[in-house]
Amino acid sequence: MKVTVLNNILEANDIIADEIRGILAPNRVLAINMMSSPGAGKTTLLERTIERLKADGVRVGVIEGDIATTRDSDRLRKFDVPIVQINTGSACHLDANMTKSALTNLDCSSIDVLFVENVGNLVCPAEFKIGEDHKVMLLSVTEGDEKPLKYPLMFRESSAMLINKIDLLPYTNFKMDEAKENALRINPRLMILPLSCTTGQGLDAWLNWVKAELAAKRKN
Amino acid sequence: MKVTVLNNILEANDIIADEIRGILAPNRVLAINMMSSPGAGKTTLLERTIERLKADGVRVGVIEGDIATTRDSDRLRKFDVPIVQINTGSACHLDANMTKSALTNLDCSSIDVLFVENVGNLVCPAEFKIGEDHKVMLLSVTEGDEKPLKYPLMFRESSAMLINKIDLLPYTNFKMDEAKENALRINPRLMILPLSCTTGQGLDAWLNWVKAELAAKRKN
Repeated sequence: MKVTVLNNILEANDIIADEIRGILAPNRVLAINMMSSPGAGKTTLLERTIERLKADGVRVGVIEGDIATTRDSDRLRKFDVPIVQINTGSACHLDANMTKSALTNLDCSSIDVLFVENVGNLVCPAEFKIGEDHKVMLLSVTEGDEKPLKYPLMFRESSAMLINKIDLLPYTNFKMDEAKENALRINPRLMILPLSCTTGQGLDAWLNWVKAELAAKRKN
Repeated sequence: MKVTVLNNILEANDIIADEIRGILAPNRVLAINMMSSPGAGKTTLLERTIERLKADGVRVGVIEGDIATTRDSDRLRKFDVPIVQINTGSACHLDANMTKSALTNLDCSSIDVLFVENVGNLVCPAEFKIGEDHKVMLLSVTEGDEKPLKYPLMFRESSAMLINKIDLLPYTNFKMDEAKENALRINPRLMILPLSCTTGQGLDAWLNWVKAELAAKRKN
């Protein structure tokens, strides 16, 4: 019974996710669904990312998903980019319906890259398509190198894994090689980019990836 | 429609949670449901806790909840205490039904304290009662001091919040006072215990809390 209901919800969700693709397609907006555990650094990465992309003339839009508060969108307001905050109330993930509603408040013709910051949760968001081109996940080194094996779905569904907070490596028992190996065992096609939003190390590779994906999207 | 189904699931869950209480009551087992984001340190805390409680003659049992792998229960095997591993497959939380099934593999007459390590998830586990006396949550300092406001349900439902990894405080922008204030705004009765499983700081206070709760349970 429970599984049947979930299947119906996911099928209904996928139909709306396709509608979102239809909305984004005419303007060739690159849509990136950002996912991670709470506190892995999604908002801080967005701060660094928006700052750099704006300087390069890339027009960014943001949908912020949180159970409660506008804290994350408040942090991004200083960049003067269009932001829509979704408060899910109790829902542990964004779904296509919420995302589509948020999109009605954004002018897609003035956006090159749409970042959707999902609710902090390493499990549930991976199940729901929201019309994105890529799911990008963050794993912070303080979370542990075995997480890909313990929470496989998100690692399987993602195009890229950003290993964040590498400035904290000396203070943890996180083994970078083991993390990469575990992640690639779950998803051999996963692009892995270690970085630190505090020191800036690795940010160039991430921004180059975004810009290359945007260029590829424009060519299609 | 979705909400109605969820209500039914939660009601059905609560009935089974009461059955679990009935199973644990004759032996006055203290049941603690441990919850946190992935990688906040639940298993490491259990390692320290079991070691210390065993030395004090307290008999511990463990139910380990993970989506996949037996990594966490493998880490606890060295303590020679009864452990049951639940692999939820895709479920993002333990429910009462899974917990009751696991309990059939434990001899409750030989356990004083039952620790149930939930799936790493700061959202969904808080919704499901599993017959516990207390929900105890971990927040690691690397996750950020604003998390109580952004993920309020778990902070509201918990009896105690362990602020873990305080050895990493010098390398983060986590403000301890702000974290406490935010948590108490959500739940004024929350017991807050900062600690580090790496240095051992604060572990005494946590173990004293567990032993005091066990003594109180025995008196009832």
